[in-house]
Amino acid sequence: GAMSIEKLQRYREQMRTELDKVVDFWQKYSHDTQYGGFFTCIGKDGKIYDELKYVWLQGRQVWMYCRLYRTMERFNKPEILEAAKSGGAFLRRFARIPNSGSPWKCAFCLTRDGKALKVQRTIFSECFYVMAMDELARVTGDKDMQAEAAQMMDQLVHWVRVDPSGLGKPQLSGDTPVCSMAVPMMLLCLVQQLTEARSGEEVDKYREVGGWCVKQILQHLQRGGTAILESVSSEGKELPGCEGRLQNPGHALEAGWFLLQYGLENGDQELQRTAVDKFMEIPFLTGWDKEHGGLLYFLDVDGYCPTQLEWSMKLWWPHCEALIAYLMAYSHTKEPALLERFSQVYDYTFMIARLPFPQPKSGGGATLLFYYE
Amino acid sequence: GAMSIEKLQRYREQMRTELDKVVDFWQKYSHDTQYGGFFTCIGKDGKIYDELKYVWLQGRQVWMYCRLYRTMERFNKPEILEAAKSGGAFLRRFARIPNSGSPWKCAFCLTRDGKALKVQRTIFSECFYVMAMDELARVTGDKDMQAEAAQMMDQLVHWVRVDPSGLGKPQLSGDTPVCSMAVPMMLLCLVQQLTEARSGEEVDKYREVGGWCVKQILQHLQRGGTAILESVSSEGKELPGCEGRLQNPGHALEAGWFLLQYGLENGDQELQRTAVDKFMEIPFLTGWDKEHGGLLYFLDVDGYCPTQLEWSMKLWWPHCEALIAYLMAYSHTKEPALLERFSQVYDYTFMIARLPFPQPKSGGGATLLFYYE
Repeated sequence: GAMSIEKLQRYREQMRTELDKVVDFWQKYSHDTQYGGFFTCIGKDGKIYDELKYVWLQGRQVWMYCRLYRTMERFNKPEILEAAKSGGAFLRRFARIPNSGSPWKCAFCLTRDGKALKVQRTIFSECFYVMAMDELARVTGDKDMQAEAAQMMDQLVHWVRVDPSGLGKPQLSGDTPVCSMAVPMMLLCLVQQLTEARSGEEVDKYREVGGWCVKQILQHLQRGGTAILESVSSEGKELPGCEGRLQNPGHALEAGWFLLQYGLENGDQELQRTAVDKFMEIPFLTGWDKEHGGLLYFLDVDGYCPTQLEWSMKLWWPHCEALIAYLMAYSHTKEPALLERFSQVYDYTFMIARLPFPQPKSGGGATLLFYYE
Repeated sequence: GAMSIEKLQRYREQMRTELDKVVDFWQKYSHDTQYGGFFTCIGKDGKIYDELKYVWLQGRQVWMYCRLYRTMERFNKPEILEAAKSGGAFLRRFARIPNSGSPWKCAFCLTRDGKALKVQRTIFSECFYVMAMDELARVTGDKDMQAEAAQMMDQLVHWVRVDPSGLGKPQLSGDTPVCSMAVPMMLLCLVQQLTEARSGEEVDKYREVGGWCVKQILQHLQRGGTAILESVSSEGKELPGCEGRLQNPGHALEAGWFLLQYGLENGDQELQRTAVDKFMEIPFLTGWDKEHGGLLYFLDVDGYCPTQLEWSMKLWWPHCEALIAYLMAYSHTKEPALLERFSQVYDYTFMIARLPFPQPKSGGGATLLFYYE
């Protein structure tokens, strides 16, 4: 109705202003003109309070600059492209670790001048590397770079579906395989990145991966469709103990966003409904703090205290992801309840973003602001 | 004065009651009579909500039972000794990881039936193994077990002072050596465990290690004696960035406790004063939340936001350690200000221990209650 349109128009204007401010801030303060790459620990006054470079944040910022440059006219400016290219060059030069057993294994964290400081035995730094390279290849037309993104994607799919041993985890007798929702969720996000507006053999290959990811993600809908659990067994069953009962409302909402997008792209109406009714609604009902507002980081489905110390925290990025999910869902269904969810999360997020002692800033901040433009 | 004595008497009675309740609870609910070892995720109603067995908690509980059995008459009961022995047998059978490159490397976490699930590339699980074995050897008189504790201690000292490569960390060019206060602090605690009421060549060797630990810990007193920083360079200088500015008030207080004890044992009055005036006073002044009470988990010495998500949490165990530190300091100096600190922390800890949704329980809970008896 008119009320909704007016309300959305107000949000849209506010987000537009915020996006301009955020991009301006990052352009002004985050570029390391000496060593390349981006700083990500920056005070509100622009002061760099830590110089470490996390590979996933470097990749996110390259992706963000390119996406803004490619799809929004007011950011189609040479200085944004140049910054993205410089970030991409830093990643290509330093992110991968020589002699790690695989030419594609990336560091988690680098020193300012690009020396590897930490490696995680997961796939996530590599996922952000793929996102950065593919999006940068789209704006520069660099075919080598696109091929590099595709090769790393092949390696990721191999680690996830065939053999994880190259990730460097020691074999331990009690460490039985566990399916974490984060893995197919991130891979599905990459499939969407790599297939956008493309066709051909390569794309068919990714579509198969995408279908597999969707099936995997849906296995996390448990307890007769009433709960989304972060980890399940390789047979898609609930696991015993705290690990099995763990809910991550932010991940569920993010998965909902990717599932809805996949459902829309493939005209799968059942998947669209599951994405909205299950992956967007359940985490709100269970994860939203009814007293103080905000999405809790972790919850135990049976109400026990999660063993993660940080379970009760309200982090800014799941709120941004929730906003994207609800806005996408509302814009396709026009269901007022989804606009209501969006409003609730928006007002809370806008409030916490202004608190005096924030979480360290990162490139993800603009993801929210970008979607609705 | 009379007032202080009366106040302390009241605390003493309350702690005595609490200790009895805590030990009773753990005896009733935590023993795994099927596989051995102890459960550590237990609801207030006694329900086991997770069956994983963390090696450090297993070690802590064996140590706690033995120490109670050995030093307090009302706990000198066969069922306590039997439980400790059973926990010790579980640890000896399952804690160490075959084929890990070192016969002494322990798992961090085991399945209920003792299969290794996770390994950390640090020394802490092994430290608790030493504590458990040494204390158990003291009550059983088992010389093999005491020798095992000594051998693992030798391995720990080797990893810390000679060559850490056996811990399994990959060599990365940006990962320059960093001195973490936790390491000499834990080793000093072990030195005190292994030397208590003993003499001879072995003890002289540990005394040398103890002296080294004290020197290392004192390097963390930085900025002209006004701040205790958790990590310093191998030359004892402040490190750049968030890592260098990190304060861990709970660790500082725990270090204060160990330093004071060492200073008392060795008649070193200057060390006693440093322990109290620096390691117990600075963390209170900087780490105590003046508005809501409680010790914050991490702080940046320059007031930036620490990158650890959990920095603002108030965990129960640093409060227990602080209580031991202040009580020990008060009982030796009789300075009323230290009794005041003790009171403040005690009242807060007693209050949070009763909140409805607690952190998972662990054997450390009784450490507090034990000291003052």
